[in-house]
Amino acid sequence: MKVSIIGATGYAGAELLGILLNHPEVEVAHITSESQTGACISEIYPHLRGFYDKKLSSMTDISQFADSQAVFIALPHGHAMGIGKQLIEQGVKIIDLGADYRFRNEAVYEEWYKVSHTHLQSGAVYGLTELYREQIKEAKIVGSAGCYTTASILALAPLAKGGLIDVKSIVIDAKSGVSGAGRGLSLGNHFAEMFDNLKAYNIGGHRHTPEIEQALTELSGQEAIINFTPHLIPMSRGILSTCYANLKAGVTPEEVDQAFEELYSQEYFIRLLGRGGYPAVKNTRGSNFCDLGWHIDPRTNRVVVVSAIDNLVKGAAGQGVQNFNVMFGFQENAGLTKIALYP
Amino acid sequence: MKVSIIGATGYAGAELLGILLNHPEVEVAHITSESQTGACISEIYPHLRGFYDKKLSSMTDISQFADSQAVFIALPHGHAMGIGKQLIEQGVKIIDLGADYRFRNEAVYEEWYKVSHTHLQSGAVYGLTELYREQIKEAKIVGSAGCYTTASILALAPLAKGGLIDVKSIVIDAKSGVSGAGRGLSLGNHFAEMFDNLKAYNIGGHRHTPEIEQALTELSGQEAIINFTPHLIPMSRGILSTCYANLKAGVTPEEVDQAFEELYSQEYFIRLLGRGGYPAVKNTRGSNFCDLGWHIDPRTNRVVVVSAIDNLVKGAAGQGVQNFNVMFGFQENAGLTKIALYP
Amino acid sequence: MKVSIIGATGYAGAELLGILLNHPEVEVAHITSESQTGACISEIYPHLRGFYDKKLSSMTDISQFADSQAVFIALPHGHAMGIGKQLIEQGVKIIDLGADYRFRNEAVYEEWYKVSHTHLQSGAVYGLTELYREQIKEAKIVGSAGCYTTASILALAPLAKGGLIDVKSIVIDAKSGVSGAGRGLSLGNHFAEMFDNLKAYNIGGHRHTPEIEQALTELSGQEAIINFTPHLIPMSRGILSTCYANLKAGVTPEEVDQAFEELYSQEYFIRLLGRGGYPAVKNTRGSNFCDLGWHIDPRTNRVVVVSAIDNLVKGAAGQGVQNFNVMFGFQENAGLTKIALYP
Amino acid sequence: MKVSIIGATGYAGAELLGILLNHPEVEVAHITSESQTGACISEIYPHLRGFYDKKLSSMTDISQFADSQAVFIALPHGHAMGIGKQLIEQGVKIIDLGADYRFRNEAVYEEWYKVSHTHLQSGAVYGLTELYREQIKEAKIVGSAGCYTTASILALAPLAKGGLIDVKSIVIDAKSGVSGAGRGLSLGNHFAEMFDNLKAYNIGGHRHTPEIEQALTELSGQEAIINFTPHLIPMSRGILSTCYANLKAGVTPEEVDQAFEELYSQEYFIRLLGRGGYPAVKNTRGSNFCDLGWHIDPRTNRVVVVSAIDNLVKGAAGQGVQNFNVMFGFQENAGLTKIALYP
Repeated sequence: MKVSIIGATGYAGAELLGILLNHPEVEVAHITSESQTGACISEIYPHLRGFYDKKLSSMTDISQFADSQAVFIALPHGHAMGIGKQLIEQGVKIIDLGADYRFRNEAVYEEWYKVSHTHLQSGAVYGLTELYREQIKEAKIVGSAGCYTTASILALAPLAKGGLIDVKSIVIDAKSGVSGAGRGLSLGNHFAEMFDNLKAYNIGGHRHTPEIEQALTELSGQEAIINFTPHLIPMSRGILSTCYANLKAGVTPEEVDQAFEELYSQEYFIRLLGRGGYPAVKNTRGSNFCDLGWHIDPRTNRVVVVSAIDNLVKGAAGQGVQNFNVMFGFQENAGLTKIALYP
Repeated sequence: MKVSIIGATGYAGAELLGILLNHPEVEVAHITSESQTGACISEIYPHLRGFYDKKLSSMTDISQFADSQAVFIALPHGHAMGIGKQLIEQGVKIIDLGADYRFRNEAVYEEWYKVSHTHLQSGAVYGLTELYREQIKEAKIVGSAGCYTTASILALAPLAKGGLIDVKSIVIDAKSGVSGAGRGLSLGNHFAEMFDNLKAYNIGGHRHTPEIEQALTELSGQEAIINFTPHLIPMSRGILSTCYANLKAGVTPEEVDQAFEELYSQEYFIRLLGRGGYPAVKNTRGSNFCDLGWHIDPRTNRVVVVSAIDNLVKGAAGQGVQNFNVMFGFQENAGLTKIALYP
Repeated sequence: MKVSIIGATGYAGAELLGILLNHPEVEVAHITSESQTGACISEIYPHLRGFYDKKLSSMTDISQFADSQAVFIALPHGHAMGIGKQLIEQGVKIIDLGADYRFRNEAVYEEWYKVSHTHLQSGAVYGLTELYREQIKEAKIVGSAGCYTTASILALAPLAKGGLIDVKSIVIDAKSGVSGAGRGLSLGNHFAEMFDNLKAYNIGGHRHTPEIEQALTELSGQEAIINFTPHLIPMSRGILSTCYANLKAGVTPEEVDQAFEELYSQEYFIRLLGRGGYPAVKNTRGSNFCDLGWHIDPRTNRVVVVSAIDNLVKGAAGQGVQNFNVMFGFQENAGLTKIALYP
Repeated sequence: MKVSIIGATGYAGAELLGILLNHPEVEVAHITSESQTGACISEIYPHLRGFYDKKLSSMTDISQFADSQAVFIALPHGHAMGIGKQLIEQGVKIIDLGADYRFRNEAVYEEWYKVSHTHLQSGAVYGLTELYREQIKEAKIVGSAGCYTTASILALAPLAKGGLIDVKSIVIDAKSGVSGAGRGLSLGNHFAEMFDNLKAYNIGGHRHTPEIEQALTELSGQEAIINFTPHLIPMSRGILSTCYANLKAGVTPEEVDQAFEELYSQEYFIRLLGRGGYPAVKNTRGSNFCDLGWHIDPRTNRVVVVSAIDNLVKGAAGQGVQNFNVMFGFQENAGLTKIALYP
């Protein structure tokens, strides 16, 4: 089965290429880049030498995708919906790793992303596989979940769904490796500036906020409004999300444990470290796993859930492939059997 | 003026040596270590070669401190109070960098540290200089504030003191470089394990929790019970503390700004980055500064304060020297004029 | 086909487990540890959770290996030859990742390793696959090449074999990530000590020296005596080896290029970046590739060859599996199709 | 005494500001930047907040320097000689941290730097203080030595001067932290690309080569032609230079030791770790020290000298201030008494 990748030169695109290489059912037909059209991907990413010596085409030649049953889009927000609309009209299924197809209510997208949405009512399904699997099976477009959002929603979903927490009390303090900021150059991500450094950014304004709120609102049936604070950590990959919420009166520790077990015990990619467990990003590096541990502080009656993922795998390309596998009826972990690179 | 250091071979002790070297009023008389008595400090820390080629003595020879007007203690908790009692009886002033003298209520110490306190009613003053300066001037014993606590209390003090926040709603998510865990070997701090890694630890149980609560309770006049979560970050030094609290109804952003200005505008070691400011640990590395920025999220009516310090300087040795300067009437920044090593 | 791993709790053992998981022809039967017998491997390495929840046995129960056609040994030097002798007598084939079976002349081993050899004339073959493939096919014991040695020998083999360099003039300056020093705790590998640090060690005395000399002597037909200097670099994985040699008079750049092409153009795991190429360890991280680039300095008539590998893959576990594949007639890259984790 | 800094916004310029802040004899009058004229230096480097809230002027207003007795220039090569010529005509003394004034033979400069020299026969003195102190005392222009060159020349000077090595046999393998590449953005120095990475660059062509050769030729009285290979290491600061040379026949280890002792035993900034010593960059970080250790390999009759410095201090700004102190008769370590930031 042939698939293509639009926007193959960013980190998520490169990760996709690495994953699909070991996918038993897939061949990559076309890879595109608007800024480096005509270049060979292995010149841009020498670690791909010998595997992908393909030339990059331009996505504007829409006819090339006729041979592809699915197209992965890894473009900055605002750029997927145009090409997406054309592809859908050609009958191609889409897995978008960006934000364009993540919101049920496009007005929320427009408010946070400051872009008019041009592909309204596309029927897109939100692509956090563990929580939206049934809908993803039927979807033609999946708006694959963001990196911070995957880590944060998976951490809180059992509690929100189980009605165990006050969804107005949620504080999410998330920490990401620098690859999350992409391959574009900036002083803040210059090695000598970011090495041995640590900082918060976009407090109160990060665009993953409404995405987390959308999911927690749906899961809990109550309007969730949260505090979300992202931080940059001096490492390449990995997200740790530390999530705080007030337990509702009378909720017991056992009920909390049970909520996690019920929702996740059958999930291949979620590893429950249990109450008192401490996920570490290194145990997920390069893999599609999400590790979860939770803690209850009786002094404040708050629950603290910690989640760890690799931002480029479960937070981007890996989850995209997981969604793709669900859409096409492949084994959900096809191409995703790598364990973490440790140490 | 002669001073001595008890416990000179840990990271805080070594940092003290580096600071006192450039202190215009001080000569280091004795340095001690129980595990490496007789060794030369510059064999243990080669960066001190040529500056301190002194031999380490044992603290048990209490008479050696007769020539010292002040003694800095940098021992693990539980070990300072014994020697401290003896030194006080000899008329020596003490700056303890550990936990033994930080608590007004020794029962709190005993509960969290699982040690009986043997130097009750010592008259020790809590050594967070900016907030307890007047008492430090008169003190014979100063229990210098901890690293996480310094970063966290300085961040929240203006709001607690000003009555602007609900002190029951406080969540502190703190991140520290690995030197905070000391020089003792452990698998978790083995380079290959911790590099490119990130994790939380001691959720709900870290011993800096009651220290923060003690200060915030005193400042606010209301019992503060908080959530405090420490994290290990793959860098040598530095703490970033991200502090969340609910604003009381009707508090305006300008009142928040004013609270910071009022408390800190005359403080040499506190740099206000203002509302919307983002401290970065790299700007404080190797210096005694604390950088503060704050943010108000109108959607949740929470305030988020971010503070950055160097855990071994403002969080340990530097603050110890700052307290010492206040105790002896020296210029408060004597020996502490280094700016950050950047990049 | 069943295989076992003796010494599964070191970094090389853990890497082997990760690789064999994706090997299409292999099932891991037994894993051993003398220091942690009875423990579950996934408690020791949480990234293996769900994949290997096996208990560790003791290697002293030799009968357990009766079901295994091959045993990988990942023990410190001096510990493989005893168990190795017993296994061979049982008809099990051995791939040893340590030093015990690497030397044709056991006296050299004894001189550098300060251990008496107890399994003389074992018929072991040196396990640097690309250079000794034909002998490995027939071997019952393979002494898989070391990490620094693999990087260094592969860099210089074409020139030594082609007679293009003076083998008395060789200087090898090698740099390794800290995982090369193993999982055992030491102050030098404590995170806060090694982070942001860089140093040489064992100058003139590193035990990989005679191993490199053995191979270069065989390849060139002349006694090679070299300078080898290892360095520790603040990163988890990866070796970069920078190798200098005097070109023989009259050797042209084209002859140098041709020597690399001839020896390696058909090799799957060797990627030639060509004259002027600059390997970077990140392009090999987590993969079994060795990247090579070479440079000729006409001012000094020296050739400089740079090689990059992952020390735990091509430098240890990956090469062990590559040797295993050759021994048993599997496809040489079975289980080894992962590309580098980038960035 | 007033001094000014031309080119204050690069890393060397910022380091100069930090050093001069603690210099007892100096006040900084003017700081310039052509790209950020009018901006406040503490906006560009927030760690300077409160110390230097000066605005950056343009160097083209030459008259502003009339109040300065000395001007430090920290511009890219090719840019110092124009302004330098004008300043000299005004009677201002110059310490240039760049390459323009480092070469006695300007033709060598022009060949390696591809720029015409416009300030010929300026009388500039080469600014490696320990080796050229007497000339620096009288100099009006000092071309302060480069970072790699300082580490490499100091390592080999005793042996070259003592006639103990064959200067045609020298191989220098140098490793630098990424700040050495400056603050300009490039993909190679993007955090996610360089973290956990390691690579050589400019083999055979780095511009520090002729500078090292110039010094070693002068010291030895014989034409030195060397191999110099720089590498980028994933850390902010620090250079380790590993230098190899053939010992002349009959040279004894004691003669080697003596050569180091004779040349350096009185030098404040050079710390001899002795034969068998292993410098580590962390012991020099943030300080102006150069640590040296040497090793003799009897098997190859080569000497291996390892040196460690901080590239921005002894390799740039610190050495500039050391030269300045010598030029003006201040104590040589004025402003330079900081020890390393450790860990």
